[in-house]
Amino acid sequence: MSASPSSGTVGRRALFRAATAIGVLQLAARQSAAAETVGDLPSWAEGAARQRIVDFVSRVTTKTSADFVPQEERTAVFDNDGTLWCEQPAYVQAVFLADRLRELAPSHPEWKTEQPYAAALAGDLNKVAAGGETAVAKLVMATHAGMTTDQFARIVSDWIAKARHPRFKRPYTELVYQPMLELLAYLRANGFKTYIVSGGGVAFMRPWTERVYGIPPEQVVGSTIKTHFAMQDGKPVLMRDPEINAVNDGPGKPVGINRFIGRRPIFAAGNSDGDLQMLQWTTGAPGARFGMIVHHTDAEREYAYDRQSHFGRLDKALAAAPQAGWLVVDMRRDWRRVFPFE
Amino acid sequence: MSASPSSGTVGRRALFRAATAIGVLQLAARQSAAAETVGDLPSWAEGAARQRIVDFVSRVTTKTSADFVPQEERTAVFDNDGTLWCEQPAYVQAVFLADRLRELAPSHPEWKTEQPYAAALAGDLNKVAAGGETAVAKLVMATHAGMTTDQFARIVSDWIAKARHPRFKRPYTELVYQPMLELLAYLRANGFKTYIVSGGGVAFMRPWTERVYGIPPEQVVGSTIKTHFAMQDGKPVLMRDPEINAVNDGPGKPVGINRFIGRRPIFAAGNSDGDLQMLQWTTGAPGARFGMIVHHTDAEREYAYDRQSHFGRLDKALAAAPQAGWLVVDMRRDWRRVFPFE
Repeated sequence: MSASPSSGTVGRRALFRAATAIGVLQLAARQSAAAETVGDLPSWAEGAARQRIVDFVSRVTTKTSADFVPQEERTAVFDNDGTLWCEQPAYVQAVFLADRLRELAPSHPEWKTEQPYAAALAGDLNKVAAGGETAVAKLVMATHAGMTTDQFARIVSDWIAKARHPRFKRPYTELVYQPMLELLAYLRANGFKTYIVSGGGVAFMRPWTERVYGIPPEQVVGSTIKTHFAMQDGKPVLMRDPEINAVNDGPGKPVGINRFIGRRPIFAAGNSDGDLQMLQWTTGAPGARFGMIVHHTDAEREYAYDRQSHFGRLDKALAAAPQAGWLVVDMRRDWRRVFPFE
Repeated sequence: MSASPSSGTVGRRALFRAATAIGVLQLAARQSAAAETVGDLPSWAEGAARQRIVDFVSRVTTKTSADFVPQEERTAVFDNDGTLWCEQPAYVQAVFLADRLRELAPSHPEWKTEQPYAAALAGDLNKVAAGGETAVAKLVMATHAGMTTDQFARIVSDWIAKARHPRFKRPYTELVYQPMLELLAYLRANGFKTYIVSGGGVAFMRPWTERVYGIPPEQVVGSTIKTHFAMQDGKPVLMRDPEINAVNDGPGKPVGINRFIGRRPIFAAGNSDGDLQMLQWTTGAPGARFGMIVHHTDAEREYAYDRQSHFGRLDKALAAAPQAGWLVVDMRRDWRRVFPFE
């Protein structure tokens, strides 16, 4: 996910997330179904992509293989937006931000005139954009901070149960890629520990990743804001503060992997330039290693985008793939099924 | 570990760590033995302490119990210094810092006159102390930053293999508490996931925690300095930068637990006021929960200290224990054996 990681990534990503999300339609409440998981990659078309994955797993799990990797070293990292679930027409967290902003607006009459809130609420993207990173940070802090960690988890859980994708009219947690669910399960069945390493907020993902992907909270790495410990009516709480702690995107992904996991992965999957350094870090060391890019080539079943997209722009990573030996998955050709509900 | 978490904790702890360590004797190289782990708490004396642990584990693992906790929620957190291994006469990482400083001194002739290096190298603790937090931070950065993460891991591994405790004349990794090794193994055998949550540096612990405690790198939470991703001769590296990222001590422990693990533990063990908020956070919620303090009462077999100690001062947490219902382990009375080599 995200645009170029070189300069102003944070601001631009968050900006596009926030901006494009404004006005995304929300529909009626319904509990999302648990994601189906199966064993042996049945949703992957027979062909080179599937074969490369199976060959790699076989090589690192066969004791007599020169590429054998002990089980505790089998670490696999997955980007989330655009790699495990749909990130079009906007990052889901940006939709959440826009919904939160509208929900909170009645108790913030000053937002009617104060920027960037007024522009954001009016859907005036150019005006929000003119405020730059500061404007976006303000929108994030207005919607993601100022409550306890428990309260925020409940806000996310309630929202994700109600929110619906504007095109597919389903909960976002159903818009996960069936072949990737199968890949996660397949790797775990072969002794891998699977992690999410996302530019999205860790607190936005943890409430539902175990149910949807089978990935527990402690295996989710993401962006964080600061928190502080306090006693509230004699009870210990963690308050979410309006200050960014770490942006886990682009070059921040290897940093986050090292900080949280402390092991170098041997398998990484992403779909955008925000995953470039994670792919480099994972595959740029001796031993058997696997890098993979999901290329969105299927406008009919999902979306088709790469170099021109605001969300999940894929340019540098796609150009680097051939020389780096990363598998580029052609969604239209390599996936027999995209979503579990198909 | 650490002194009062109220104000200036970072500086004071690091200061005492650095200061007291200077001059600690180092002996000849020898590979440390793997720690023995056994099943059923044989090094715990029959009595109330052991019984309370066994009762708690029984309650949360018995399906028909009102206090049953599903396996994925059985998170146990352990402080390291003074809880899992010996922290007297100085935090081990402070000894490491002092050794590194002496080792690097020949390539830093300016340290002969520049403070705080000159004072630290001369063992002039009062002069180092006069420089406050800034002085200590400088010493940490001079010894812990400016190399890749891989290089630092190698430096730590080499040092820990060679360094010897001044009183026990053994590798520090042998000065781990046998009853705590048994407790870790016992909890894991009962479906708990065991974590270290230490004020020490995560990069100083991860190279050896799996071998010594059976705790893998991804289950070690600690203090961190900043790192950044770079390409070095065409290879991706993470450089350790001379800037603190997070201090995982006192009120920073619940923050670290939430950030890294994303679950609220149901079991916490510590030994000092630096663990107070971790104990509060762990036990201050509904459901079966267990807080435990290792009280160092055994000057003969190990050390006896609490309120007056620079390292691992135990004052507020000890005072809070009775009302909070935390188990206070009396090392002399409750442990039949302290170290594995006894």
